[in-house]
Amino acid sequence: MLTGDILTHDLDVDGILRLTLNDPGRRNALSEAMLAELAGAFARAGADPAVRIIILAAKGPAFCAGHDLKEMTAGRAGADGGRAYFAQVLTQCSGVMQGIVTCPKPVIAEVTGVATAAGCQLVASCDLAIAAQTATFSTPGVHIGLFCSTPMVALSRNVGSKHAMEMLLTGDMIPADRAAEMGLINRTAAVEDLRDAVMELARKIASKSSMTLATGKGAFYAQRDMTLSEAYDYATQVMVDNMLARDAEEGIGAFIAKRPPVWLDA
Amino acid sequence: MLTGDILTHDLDVDGILRLTLNDPGRRNALSEAMLAELAGAFARAGADPAVRIIILAAKGPAFCAGHDLKEMTAGRAGADGGRAYFAQVLTQCSGVMQGIVTCPKPVIAEVTGVATAAGCQLVASCDLAIAAQTATFSTPGVHIGLFCSTPMVALSRNVGSKHAMEMLLTGDMIPADRAAEMGLINRTAAVEDLRDAVMELARKIASKSSMTLATGKGAFYAQRDMTLSEAYDYATQVMVDNMLARDAEEGIGAFIAKRPPVWLDA
Amino acid sequence: MLTGDILTHDLDVDGILRLTLNDPGRRNALSEAMLAELAGAFARAGADPAVRIIILAAKGPAFCAGHDLKEMTAGRAGADGGRAYFAQVLTQCSGVMQGIVTCPKPVIAEVTGVATAAGCQLVASCDLAIAAQTATFSTPGVHIGLFCSTPMVALSRNVGSKHAMEMLLTGDMIPADRAAEMGLINRTAAVEDLRDAVMELARKIASKSSMTLATGKGAFYAQRDMTLSEAYDYATQVMVDNMLARDAEEGIGAFIAKRPPVWLDA
Repeated sequence: MLTGDILTHDLDVDGILRLTLNDPGRRNALSEAMLAELAGAFARAGADPAVRIIILAAKGPAFCAGHDLKEMTAGRAGADGGRAYFAQVLTQCSGVMQGIVTCPKPVIAEVTGVATAAGCQLVASCDLAIAAQTATFSTPGVHIGLFCSTPMVALSRNVGSKHAMEMLLTGDMIPADRAAEMGLINRTAAVEDLRDAVMELARKIASKSSMTLATGKGAFYAQRDMTLSEAYDYATQVMVDNMLARDAEEGIGAFIAKRPPVWLDA
Repeated sequence: MLTGDILTHDLDVDGILRLTLNDPGRRNALSEAMLAELAGAFARAGADPAVRIIILAAKGPAFCAGHDLKEMTAGRAGADGGRAYFAQVLTQCSGVMQGIVTCPKPVIAEVTGVATAAGCQLVASCDLAIAAQTATFSTPGVHIGLFCSTPMVALSRNVGSKHAMEMLLTGDMIPADRAAEMGLINRTAAVEDLRDAVMELARKIASKSSMTLATGKGAFYAQRDMTLSEAYDYATQVMVDNMLARDAEEGIGAFIAKRPPVWLDA
Repeated sequence: MLTGDILTHDLDVDGILRLTLNDPGRRNALSEAMLAELAGAFARAGADPAVRIIILAAKGPAFCAGHDLKEMTAGRAGADGGRAYFAQVLTQCSGVMQGIVTCPKPVIAEVTGVATAAGCQLVASCDLAIAAQTATFSTPGVHIGLFCSTPMVALSRNVGSKHAMEMLLTGDMIPADRAAEMGLINRTAAVEDLRDAVMELARKIASKSSMTLATGKGAFYAQRDMTLSEAYDYATQVMVDNMLARDAEEGIGAFIAKRPPVWLDA
C-alpha cells in the first residue's frame, strides 16, 4: 500500500486499485494538491500492467465538494486579478476529468456521500458509478455566482437536457435514487453494502482481458463524438484489430472449446 | 402589465416574466401573428435587465396545437404553390424555437394541457418544463402527411431515440407521466398545484445572478454540440471568465463569510 | 410468401413485411449467409412500394446470438491471419445495421428471446422495438476478449453512457424490463401478447403515408448528427418540401374537412 497524504492507493491481488480521496477535513475538495495527486494516480495506473480496474472512493461523509474555494479566492491576489491562476487550476481540473476518460482502465466511482460541483463532475466522468442510498448530487455553482460550466460538460453527457438544466439552474441537491433514474449513476446500494457492491462489479470487470477493456473503453468515448457512419467506419476497424489480438483468439477459442480463457496479462 | 391580443406579458417584482399564449379559440396555434409575438417577446425579455426568468404559459385547455393549418393551407394559393410562404413561416418558427434556446434568461414551460406538433416543440425547446398531470404530448404530423421534422429537432435532444421515433412515427398522445419518464419534461404537478410548482421553481432561479444564469445557459447549449475535448476547452475558458466577473467574486466571498450574496443586478 | 432458407419473408395485405430470422439451430447467428440475406431483404423492402413497414422477428428461443464465432474462427486460416476476412465480414455487418437505419421504411424489432452482441445491435439499430418480458439483452464480447465495439455504436445511441458502459464492460445479461427503462426498447409485452402488440404498432404506422414516413425517418437520423442550428436549417427545408408533397396537401385538406385522408400509395 502506497499512502499519499490526501489520496491513498491500495492495489489488491486481483488488480483492483482503490484510490481514496483522503482529505475529509476539507470535504475532499479538489485543491491543487489533490488535482495533482489524481492526475498522477490515473496516469500511473493507466500505465501500470498490474492495475486492471480503478475504484475512486472517498473517506468521510462527503465524497467530494469540488474546488477549494478559499484556495481559488487567494488566487485573486495576482496582478491580473487571478486570470492566469484560474486558467491554470481549471485547466488542471479539466485535465484530471479527461484523464479519467482517457485512462485505459475502467474507473468506478464509489459514492459514499455528497458529491457537488467538480465532485459531481468526478462521478459523471467515471465510466461507472454506484452510490450509497444516502448520497446526494448537485451542481451548486449558481448559488455563488459561478455556474458549474465545466461540470456540465460531464453531466450533460450522462443525463438528459431537461434534468441537467434543472440541476445546473437550481443548484438543488438530488438524492441518489433520482440520480440513478436520471442516469448519472448506475444504481444505488444500501450504505452498508456499498463497498461490497462496488467490489463485486470491479472483480467481474477485472477478470476480463485488460487489452480488451482498454480497446473498448477508448473506442467508446471516441465513437460517441462521431456521426453514425464515421462511428461505424471507426468501430469496424477497431474490431478487426481486436479480432487479430491474441486475447480475442484465446477468448473465442476457449468459448468454442467450453473452457475458461487465460488472458495474456492474467 | 402589457397586454397583446394573443400573447400576454406579466412581469412581477421578482423579475419573473409570465408570457401567456392567449388565443384559446385557436388552441393557441402558432399562427404567423403568434410567432411574431413570441419572437419579439423573447428578444425583448432577453435584453431587458428587469427580466430574470421567463415562464411560458397558456390560456385555455390546450397549451399549444402547433401551426395554424388553415393559415398554412391558404398559403398554397401562391404561384409557387406556397413554397416561398412555407419557407418563410417555417423559418420564422424555427427562429422562435432557437430564440428560446439563445435567450439569455432561463425559460420554463408551464404546460396546462395538450401540446402537439410545434406546440410539443415549444415545450422541448424550453430549458425546463413542468406539466399538469392531465397534459398530453404528441407529434401528430404523420397523421396528416406532414412529418413533424422540425419538432423532432427539439424532441430528439430531450428524449431517447426509440422514444422519439415512437412519438414521431405513430403520432400517439403521450400522457404527462410518461413524458416525465422519457425526459421531455422535468416533472408533473397536480392541475391545481401547477402554477405554484412553476412559480416556486422560477423564484428559486430568479434569486440567482442573471450574469451567472446567462453565462451558464449559453454555455450549456454551445458545449452540447461539441466533442468532449472541445467542450472542455470551451467550458474551461467560460469558467475562467466567470470567476473574474463581479458576481462570482461576491458570491464566493459571501459563501466563505457565510452571508447572503448581493448580485450586481439584484 | 417468399421463403429463404434462413430468413423468411411474409408480406401482408396492409404492407407489413415480416422478416423472420430462421436459423434457430445456430441461435439465428449473423453468419455471412444471414448477413447477405438481411442486406438484400432490407434493400429490396426499401425499394418495394408494396412494403410500408418491416418487422424483424426470429424463430426459436433466441432472437439473435450475434456473429457466428466458428465461421469467424475459420477465417483465421488466411495468410494474413484473417485480417482481410474479418474486415470483410465486419464491414458487411456494419452495412446491414446502417442499411436498417437508411431503409426508408420503419423497422420494428420483435424480440422474443435473448439478443446478444450483434444481435443486441440489431435491436438497437431498429427504429422501434418491443420485447417479450422474458427476453434478455447483452453485449458479452468482453467475456471472449472481443469487445462489442460495433454493437456499442448502436447501443450508445439508444441508452445513456453509464448504462451502455455497464453492459459493455460487464457483458451482463439485462432483463427486458430494465432494457425498457434504459431506452434500448420501447416497451415489453407478455410473451403470448408480443406478436399482437407488434402487429398493432405496425398496423398503426402502416396506415400513414409512405412518403411521409420515409421523409421523417431519413431526416431523423440525418439531423441527429448535426448541431442544433444545422439541424434546424436542414429540418426546415425538409418540412417545406414535405408541405409541397401531394400527401401533405391531401392529409391537411382531409384534416380540415374532417374526412379520412387517402394517400397516394395506399
